[in-house]
Amino acid sequence: MTCRENCYVTHLESAIDGTKLPHDRIQTLHEGRPLWVRYDLDAIKANLTPATIFQREPTLWRYRELLPLPPGAMPVSLGEGMTPVLPAVRLGETIGAPHLWIKDESQLPTGSFKSRGLCMAITMAKHFGVKRVAIPTAGNAGGAMAAYAARAGMEAFVFMPKDTPVINQAECALAGAKTFLVNGLINDCGAIVRNGVDTMNWFDLSTLKEPYRIEGKKTMGLELAEQFGYDLPDVIVYPTGGGTGLIGMWKAFNELRKLGWLQTATMPKMVAVQSDGCAPIPRAFDAGERFATPWENAATCASGLRVPGAVGDFMILDAIRESGGWAVAVEEDKIVSAMQHAVKTEGISICPEAAACTLAIEKLRSDNRMKRSDRVVLFNTGAASKYLETIPRDLPIIDDPSAIDYAKLFAR
Amino acid sequence: MTCRENCYVTHLESAIDGTKLPHDRIQTLHEGRPLWVRYDLDAIKANLTPATIFQREPTLWRYRELLPLPPGAMPVSLGEGMTPVLPAVRLGETIGAPHLWIKDESQLPTGSFKSRGLCMAITMAKHFGVKRVAIPTAGNAGGAMAAYAARAGMEAFVFMPKDTPVINQAECALAGAKTFLVNGLINDCGAIVRNGVDTMNWFDLSTLKEPYRIEGKKTMGLELAEQFGYDLPDVIVYPTGGGTGLIGMWKAFNELRKLGWLQTATMPKMVAVQSDGCAPIPRAFDAGERFATPWENAATCASGLRVPGAVGDFMILDAIRESGGWAVAVEEDKIVSAMQHAVKTEGISICPEAAACTLAIEKLRSDNRMKRSDRVVLFNTGAASKYLETIPRDLPIIDDPSAIDYAKLFAR
Repeated sequence: MTCRENCYVTHLESAIDGTKLPHDRIQTLHEGRPLWVRYDLDAIKANLTPATIFQREPTLWRYRELLPLPPGAMPVSLGEGMTPVLPAVRLGETIGAPHLWIKDESQLPTGSFKSRGLCMAITMAKHFGVKRVAIPTAGNAGGAMAAYAARAGMEAFVFMPKDTPVINQAECALAGAKTFLVNGLINDCGAIVRNGVDTMNWFDLSTLKEPYRIEGKKTMGLELAEQFGYDLPDVIVYPTGGGTGLIGMWKAFNELRKLGWLQTATMPKMVAVQSDGCAPIPRAFDAGERFATPWENAATCASGLRVPGAVGDFMILDAIRESGGWAVAVEEDKIVSAMQHAVKTEGISICPEAAACTLAIEKLRSDNRMKRSDRVVLFNTGAASKYLETIPRDLPIIDDPSAIDYAKLFAR
Repeated sequence: MTCRENCYVTHLESAIDGTKLPHDRIQTLHEGRPLWVRYDLDAIKANLTPATIFQREPTLWRYRELLPLPPGAMPVSLGEGMTPVLPAVRLGETIGAPHLWIKDESQLPTGSFKSRGLCMAITMAKHFGVKRVAIPTAGNAGGAMAAYAARAGMEAFVFMPKDTPVINQAECALAGAKTFLVNGLINDCGAIVRNGVDTMNWFDLSTLKEPYRIEGKKTMGLELAEQFGYDLPDVIVYPTGGGTGLIGMWKAFNELRKLGWLQTATMPKMVAVQSDGCAPIPRAFDAGERFATPWENAATCASGLRVPGAVGDFMILDAIRESGGWAVAVEEDKIVSAMQHAVKTEGISICPEAAACTLAIEKLRSDNRMKRSDRVVLFNTGAASKYLETIPRDLPIIDDPSAIDYAKLFAR
């Protein structure tokens, strides 16, 4: 069987009720809920092997058969993908999990994991002829969207709370996006985008409001599987805002299982981490609920975790429970020192969101939900240097460089 | 012939007079001038092929035989290397060079090309038992050094002019380096490091003051060659501060030529780009001199180009002339708008130094030194988002998100 013209995608499917929708046209939500992209996995199994993928270029497009873009159509690419999985034994020892790896998503275009999802969303939007896109963002998504929109030659609108980190503001403006600071939270920004769809004729790229960001984020799971020789780790610890990455990885692992590529029968436990300054998912998880009540007065220095209500809440909670994992809220006031500790210990540019994950690991180890022998992968979703406001710095000044007192320097 | 215990390195060699020095111990300068690392290229030729390299992991360590670390010794790694080469046809069209590619070094650990050199320097320093390192820096080198020193478990000291971009300051501090702001320029910082060597017992990691940063930067050339199928481009345009990358790439191309791997007889023209706010290399080039007089009152928004005097000046100028290339000074006051234009046009996170290169290409095309048909590669040496002070942003604020006037937004 050869690859058909519209590739291996068979249809889109409502995540809430399984309704099938065609994939040959632009789609958004179905009755307010997100869509899955479904593939003919039997056909992929017959045509593709891990060995073939191994020979390809180190970008996320090496998994093309498992992605939605039809063959022959051009990706909108900035060279994204195949981020390294770095051993972090020293850091792991300090938090009770010495078999720790960090998948370093800071080494992607625009310095964050948002590139994966927005690369795919913009690629598909362009494929369907979209000329203008808009997004609400409180962090790295805006910069990624602006960059890929520029790469695609699209007009872009970004709406962000006015207290969004300055670097996120600057990168959107620099990439030519029409960027607006909003006196409000991300849900206010979301409303601006949603309400403008008809008047402005833009396509809404909000988290999960179109089906393809998940497919981009899915490549975190595909890469991780390949990098672990398809012998998946025991636990995956993931900082969760909108949760697309966690949802996408879980989808990836299930697709790989159906392809028969996984080396073991057990799947990794998925752990969603939030700050106790904004913890709707842990609250719903602990209460045994499938949907999460929006969090009031959301506040955290980890801007990517400041998502009071996620449209894919049930998809996150389903994935965690299916995997036997947990949702964990960590103490907001420990995040900055955890970030300093992690960067200093491993040299990896660990962002506040990933630092929260180190606190979650400590917690899961202290109550023995995780074992010391577990192989654990933590996702570093962005570069620490993008969180300028969060990095403590009060550096000593040398006023007269010709009169250095080295003994004094040394004593510091 | 098998790989020998100390690998393929045969010796170190003074760049100024060819004096041979042993490579089995720590080395710095020879009579104030840098050292080359020399290899037994015949032995490498007999043992290594491009096909073997192609099968390896996408990091710069895939070129291990052409690097100085002995086999079996462990690299200090953050997963660096194999940055993408992105076509930039649209940008190229606007500057008269449509066959333009950008090698995007912003997708490296710490968001800049400095990772390559400092990865190698720290790896070798650790191999030789160094416990404490120091560096003067006016930009990205400090952050890279701090990160790799942390990864290696070394103590690190960083000295930077107090007007160094804030993100560069923050990343050093975050990685645990003892970071000092100096009331002076980078040469003042250099003196602090140099004068402290005995008292502080630190190893001086200044540009070219140890032989291995060149070898790390060399991998830009090795990767580029592999990514172009060993059919090198016609012109390489490189923003030049200390010039290690240009020197390293030229060394790489010559080594590849001796290995017989190159597909064409002609070598690329190497173009060194500086700002007219600090242009010692173009001045020396135009005057036909081998050494560059230090630039007075150096000033440029492209912090990586603010190097008034480079210890490897003659190595840079030799490489440019051997290649038939040029040194070009561009107008300082055009750099910021060139950066905005480039990022907006391609979506790539182009830093001020790389933006200067687009101006240089325009210049070389306008006087026909470069042909329209030339295949040109430009190096984007770092992420634009690290240059917060340089990015124009004066974003409109939406005070009342519930009362949006879309027509007004649209009119902007």
